[in-house]
Amino acid sequence: MIETPYLLFLGDAPDQLAAKVAQGIKDWRPEYALGQFRMEGCKADMKLPDMDLKAAKAAGAKTLVIGVANRGGVISPAWKRVLIDALEEGFDIASGLHNLLREEEDLVAVAKTFGRTLHDVRIPSVKYPIANGVKRTGKRCLAVGTDCSVGKMYTALALDKSMREKGMKSTFRATGQTGILITGDGVPLDAVIADFMAGSIEYLTPDNDADHWDLIEGQGSLFHVSYSGVTMALVHGGQPDALILCHEPTREHMRGLPGFKLPTLEALRDTALTLAKVGNPDCKVVGISVNTQHMSEDEALAYLAKVEKEMGLPTVDPFRQGADRLADALAEV
Amino acid sequence: MIETPYLLFLGDAPDQLAAKVAQGIKDWRPEYALGQFRMEGCKADMKLPDMDLKAAKAAGAKTLVIGVANRGGVISPAWKRVLIDALEEGFDIASGLHNLLREEEDLVAVAKTFGRTLHDVRIPSVKYPIANGVKRTGKRCLAVGTDCSVGKMYTALALDKSMREKGMKSTFRATGQTGILITGDGVPLDAVIADFMAGSIEYLTPDNDADHWDLIEGQGSLFHVSYSGVTMALVHGGQPDALILCHEPTREHMRGLPGFKLPTLEALRDTALTLAKVGNPDCKVVGISVNTQHMSEDEALAYLAKVEKEMGLPTVDPFRQGADRLADALAEV
Repeated sequence: MIETPYLLFLGDAPDQLAAKVAQGIKDWRPEYALGQFRMEGCKADMKLPDMDLKAAKAAGAKTLVIGVANRGGVISPAWKRVLIDALEEGFDIASGLHNLLREEEDLVAVAKTFGRTLHDVRIPSVKYPIANGVKRTGKRCLAVGTDCSVGKMYTALALDKSMREKGMKSTFRATGQTGILITGDGVPLDAVIADFMAGSIEYLTPDNDADHWDLIEGQGSLFHVSYSGVTMALVHGGQPDALILCHEPTREHMRGLPGFKLPTLEALRDTALTLAKVGNPDCKVVGISVNTQHMSEDEALAYLAKVEKEMGLPTVDPFRQGADRLADALAEV
Repeated sequence: MIETPYLLFLGDAPDQLAAKVAQGIKDWRPEYALGQFRMEGCKADMKLPDMDLKAAKAAGAKTLVIGVANRGGVISPAWKRVLIDALEEGFDIASGLHNLLREEEDLVAVAKTFGRTLHDVRIPSVKYPIANGVKRTGKRCLAVGTDCSVGKMYTALALDKSMREKGMKSTFRATGQTGILITGDGVPLDAVIADFMAGSIEYLTPDNDADHWDLIEGQGSLFHVSYSGVTMALVHGGQPDALILCHEPTREHMRGLPGFKLPTLEALRDTALTLAKVGNPDCKVVGISVNTQHMSEDEALAYLAKVEKEMGLPTVDPFRQGADRLADALAEV
């Protein structure tokens, strides 16, 4: 568990996109985003107060979160200076970089001296159990996609926001590094050992109130041959009561797999539901979330209406329209 | 790659069953099983020549394979003495024990001094790629089960034996520790990091002659919620041209999961084939392998005939009948 609130480290981000982790935190957990720390040449701006370490500490920030991708995959000397100062100032540090904090001897040594914690969210910090399949109390919703990177995390976060606004009980359950940094907790599923994948998701979504929803962040796709095993573990470990189908209609082939066509929404529905019913016979497909960012407003609305009619399920783009209709669909499960 | 031939270490096995790894090597790769090393009190016997280390070395043995499960999960001092002597004598050691050889400082030190290798086959020794789904030359067959431990490894090994006898080109591809120790090579799939599972199977089954069959050892089951993600990675990483359905008809619930019923063979066929076609649209289900060990001969034959009629596929128990009919089915693919 990462301590909040955060000071968001934007480093020397070359553009806004490089700081998408920081953007996610700002968008979805603004209450965690106390301020931003920008180095010379930083081209990203979260429109948060610029703070130095002392000011952020005085304002109550607990963790410096690396909200930016590093260039060349290594932690530069310029970054290193800030990170060491932050540890000395009393901050923990959280990072989803490939270049692990724990692999940097100086950071490890300084963190030890000052009693601070280095969170590498790419690496599991828990010894997960093997899944036992025992039915848990409370409800769970899983977003499954026709492909990778079609908006599953966004859908679950938007749903969480909508449900909270409606006074429903919900918790976003992160299964990837960005989600973990946004919420401060979760399972880095792609880095879990094969035998413990489903168990890690059972661990992540324990017994809860009967009217509480875990909104589980999806990963990969049952139709993406590189990562389908990870998705399968979510379908069975998550024991979902409800599935939401996620789709990006303009994609010409599966991400990173030229020659592999995307499945239809019907194929995704049938395959995902058949498999999900193994773990939870009462599972239902309740709605569809479409990422229409590459369509005009008119095209998007026409496409959403067409899918809704064909599939007979509430169909929205949560970015354009919010996730209220999906939340309403969950309320009826 | 583990050097062959082997001296099989049976230690102080309390019974024959405790030495099932040694039994597998003896049964399936007798040419690797030069002799056995038994300690005082050993109750297992592979009917191989009893050899001490010097005799086995003189006979050409390269690796001491731990063919027995250890009691209490730790390597005892009595075992340790033999293992150290073996390293000094010039043997490598191979083990599938939970208690890793590499965690024993004395073994590591002695192996280093004498230039020997410690093979812990539970742990991947390769940095596997992410799967790319690119179609490979040659053919692949995967055994998929209604449950775990229904005879998938046995089926693939029996098929390999039959195909070799028929002069067909085949290679058994191990994906678990016993299979790896039997053949000297493979991928310990249950210990692979989630993101690399399918890639490890692509790595295991590379391009080959057009008429060559990789017989991929199955793991878990698409219907076993604890391990289905591992199975899914085999279905997509393996890119099978042919599936063989494996079943154990007397089991009352999924292994380790009371309350979970086994799927029907029809459900396994439909689900596995739908998913396999994502990776290889030409995939076919070619036969059924039934483990009838808990049935009488009459019951077994009647059951096999009934399934063959219902499913319209060659149906055999390879232990009772050999795998020739399955090999013939592959020859027609």
